[in-house]
Amino acid sequence: MNKKIYILDSTLRDGAQGQGISFSLEDKIKICKCLDDLGIDFIEAGNPGSNPKDLELFKSMKNIKLNHAKLVAFGSTRRAGTKAEDDKNLKDLLDAGVDTIVLFGKSWDFQVKDILKTTLEENLAMIYDSIKFLVDKGKKVFFDSEHFFDGFKSSEEYALETLRIAKEAGAEVVVLCDTNGGTLPSEISKIVSKTNKVLGDNLGIHCHNDMGMAVANSVMAVEEGASHIQGTFIGIGERCGNANLSTILPTLICKYNYELNAGKSLDKLTKISRYISEISNITLSDDTPYVGASAFAHKGGMHIDAVAKDPKSYEHIKPELVGNKRRFLVSEVSGKSTIWKEVQKIFPNIKKDSEEVKIITDKLKELEFDGYQFEGAEGTVELVMRKVIGKYEPFFKLNHFKIIGEQPSLKGTFSSTALINITVDGKTEITAAEGDGPVNALDKALRKALEVFYPQLRSVRLVDYKVRVLDSESNTGAKVRVLIESTDGVEKWSNVGVSKDIIEASWIALVDSIEYKLIKDIERKVRTYF
Amino acid sequence: MNKKIYILDSTLRDGAQGQGISFSLEDKIKICKCLDDLGIDFIEAGNPGSNPKDLELFKSMKNIKLNHAKLVAFGSTRRAGTKAEDDKNLKDLLDAGVDTIVLFGKSWDFQVKDILKTTLEENLAMIYDSIKFLVDKGKKVFFDSEHFFDGFKSSEEYALETLRIAKEAGAEVVVLCDTNGGTLPSEISKIVSKTNKVLGDNLGIHCHNDMGMAVANSVMAVEEGASHIQGTFIGIGERCGNANLSTILPTLICKYNYELNAGKSLDKLTKISRYISEISNITLSDDTPYVGASAFAHKGGMHIDAVAKDPKSYEHIKPELVGNKRRFLVSEVSGKSTIWKEVQKIFPNIKKDSEEVKIITDKLKELEFDGYQFEGAEGTVELVMRKVIGKYEPFFKLNHFKIIGEQPSLKGTFSSTALINITVDGKTEITAAEGDGPVNALDKALRKALEVFYPQLRSVRLVDYKVRVLDSESNTGAKVRVLIESTDGVEKWSNVGVSKDIIEASWIALVDSIEYKLIKDIERKVRTYF
Repeated sequence: MNKKIYILDSTLRDGAQGQGISFSLEDKIKICKCLDDLGIDFIEAGNPGSNPKDLELFKSMKNIKLNHAKLVAFGSTRRAGTKAEDDKNLKDLLDAGVDTIVLFGKSWDFQVKDILKTTLEENLAMIYDSIKFLVDKGKKVFFDSEHFFDGFKSSEEYALETLRIAKEAGAEVVVLCDTNGGTLPSEISKIVSKTNKVLGDNLGIHCHNDMGMAVANSVMAVEEGASHIQGTFIGIGERCGNANLSTILPTLICKYNYELNAGKSLDKLTKISRYISEISNITLSDDTPYVGASAFAHKGGMHIDAVAKDPKSYEHIKPELVGNKRRFLVSEVSGKSTIWKEVQKIFPNIKKDSEEVKIITDKLKELEFDGYQFEGAEGTVELVMRKVIGKYEPFFKLNHFKIIGEQPSLKGTFSSTALINITVDGKTEITAAEGDGPVNALDKALRKALEVFYPQLRSVRLVDYKVRVLDSESNTGAKVRVLIESTDGVEKWSNVGVSKDIIEASWIALVDSIEYKLIKDIERKVRTYF
Repeated sequence: MNKKIYILDSTLRDGAQGQGISFSLEDKIKICKCLDDLGIDFIEAGNPGSNPKDLELFKSMKNIKLNHAKLVAFGSTRRAGTKAEDDKNLKDLLDAGVDTIVLFGKSWDFQVKDILKTTLEENLAMIYDSIKFLVDKGKKVFFDSEHFFDGFKSSEEYALETLRIAKEAGAEVVVLCDTNGGTLPSEISKIVSKTNKVLGDNLGIHCHNDMGMAVANSVMAVEEGASHIQGTFIGIGERCGNANLSTILPTLICKYNYELNAGKSLDKLTKISRYISEISNITLSDDTPYVGASAFAHKGGMHIDAVAKDPKSYEHIKPELVGNKRRFLVSEVSGKSTIWKEVQKIFPNIKKDSEEVKIITDKLKELEFDGYQFEGAEGTVELVMRKVIGKYEPFFKLNHFKIIGEQPSLKGTFSSTALINITVDGKTEITAAEGDGPVNALDKALRKALEVFYPQLRSVRLVDYKVRVLDSESNTGAKVRVLIESTDGVEKWSNVGVSKDIIEASWIALVDSIEYKLIKDIERKVRTYF
């Protein structure tokens, strides 16, 4: 089967409707880059009509080159009783400045009459006029047929008529939406098959997960003729979420052998899925299909024995295909060759069977067990390797730091102060700084002290700071993982620290980040000599 | 459709194979009672042959009366080249002392030859002998046909032969297992339909979630003739877990109208699912279908307006059917009517156009602009309402607090200490506490001081603590939002605090949480007077 399938990711639009999700502009840009890297075809980047902040993203993305992905804007058909050319929402869609627009409209007669409170005819006109308006302005339009399946069950004729009129107005793809997520897989099959017979190709599918069937429903629709799939990463979205693209992509590629642009980069799937969940501040459940930490983890002794004989005995695909790893939960065999590959990047002469690779593997495992996560914390991984291989000397010695926070403070508001005492080459520097919060104060004090000895640190600044509470069930005494991203204006690097104390976790990551920068500078100098 | 469907829950057996799951005997007894309360037909309570501790449960359960559920034991067919009457595993199964036994055996020729390393004929004999042995001892046997679907694809004839022989030996139900979770819904359909034609009724289905399709695959199998379903609660289990019964039950009952014993108690589903996830020490994801906190939560303004007109516009079933609740998430996008509905829950006489509703709406928006997020923080929303409407008096006055963290500390490791000084009814209490991190120390000190005046706070503990860095691009000086969830053993509530300082943000949320509890207690007292 070599059917070509197109993927539209709506993490930034429908995904952002999920409870607790709120992306900053920077987060959104990072997600766009990730999705492009994975080979996604279309990125639904926002709804400029309902959320003016979304326009910022479209503006910012104009200066960022994507390899393959196309940004699309999402919005509604014109309001009842108005003209398309006067509609503010349609105008906002044009302002997004993208070539492709996803326009949604109603296909369920009940929704038209009881919710929109307009006539069935006017709704058809709304669909036609809005699409026509955009097409006449040179835009490519995908029509999201909201509640299509509920509509089809209520009035097959009317639901199909909304699609027909959309195509007539120039919509390139009509997307069948199971907006409420209540349609069964066998119903999806029958309805898509019938729609395909009546309307022909260029059908899309958009499923919600209210019965836990969004992924199954999406692939059932593809079997019956859909060639455009909408979903979100990790399945975030309103209520129970949307169809999870991190599950759909490998299923279509590995099980059906369909042709997807993401096929070439499927081995990045695990890394990118985990990265997006970090940015979304969602804990990616270990049992997430394909990309979760336990997706290829074997616990039962009998299962482990069988997998050692032949992995296919308890694995439906090879974990490497999606960039994930097999884990035997009771033993500690996995990972050495992966880690060796990382070590080789810095120390090309190290052998796979060397003592160093073993020690690094054990050390990383120990840290992971303590709650560290190295996805996207390359800086810390490199420092662990250097420490083991002996190519590491501390740049300073901490003698003491102290942080004081009080309310009310002398200033009247809450305030945090940090005092620090360090030694470099036998010289001691004592200084202090105030900051917004204890970590900010400590960060400022540490830099202030170190800049006396290492002026190059003046160019370094933190660009991202993320806190994740681990085992949150054990209350404010739970462990926290701090991930920081730093830049010196040229490069960016990330470091991670874990502790029961947020200040200690931040301290670990801060020190790591500074040492990483100083090592890189020395290497650059060394390189210029040879 | 009035087909009768039987449910076998394997939370205690296959569920216990999930990463991080370990049940105590007490936990297991609680889960058995829950499942019985919900009307589950069979509880697979353990594998006495592979885990001798499972026998304890069978022994303990003899003294506990269940209303409807039957306990069943799980185990393997005899080993190759031995006699059934000499097999330790089969003996252990009899020792469990239950009437019904689930026996698993191989149906995939590859597994028989390459993993068991025996002949296809011997495997058939193992199945026949083992079942016959148990049936002759008066037991009812369900045969779990491991890897049936992979087996069917490899050799249809052999896979079907294992089922035929099981039936011939006296198995009452033969259960088709998608052990590796790699079978597509349309494949499940075809294979179950064919098997049903060859073997007749009394087919079961057992699915794994490695492609996120375990629930869909289970119902597809039921459509094609299966009448016995195996799964676990919340879908826990090896790798990506098993078919989630908390999703399957309402789908079969509400969507198909099948006859299930659990049909009478479906309104307990949410409560019991959450309780089992508590016992399993798993965080039930908010977006879990039917039973999650967000399963019927609406965020988009347009969705909220439509649901207010008619819930079916964005809900596939009535939340009450499964004992869940509709929620309107107060967010940037929500308007006055959402907030009015929330206000009415506490102050039923407030009018939509009242000045108070306007002030509350403005206040919540202002807080949101500052970085607050009220989704899932109903405690804080209620306090804002009470403060505006004037039904609020502070329970204590903070005079001063001070937090000190240092490295190295007197103890050698990093340590945080909090000092606090508060006044209640003119009496001042000064105290201090040490903790894992500054927030934990402050939390402990505050409770210690307040418990002197409000002993009821002793029952309160934090169950969740989340930190989100807002505008993380602006480094460690960025704003943070702290969300805490508290319980007094009866109710759970959530509160939120935002500040540039993580300690201040946590302080705001902590105080909020305590005040919420104290207000609720007063209300309960007031209610008992009338």
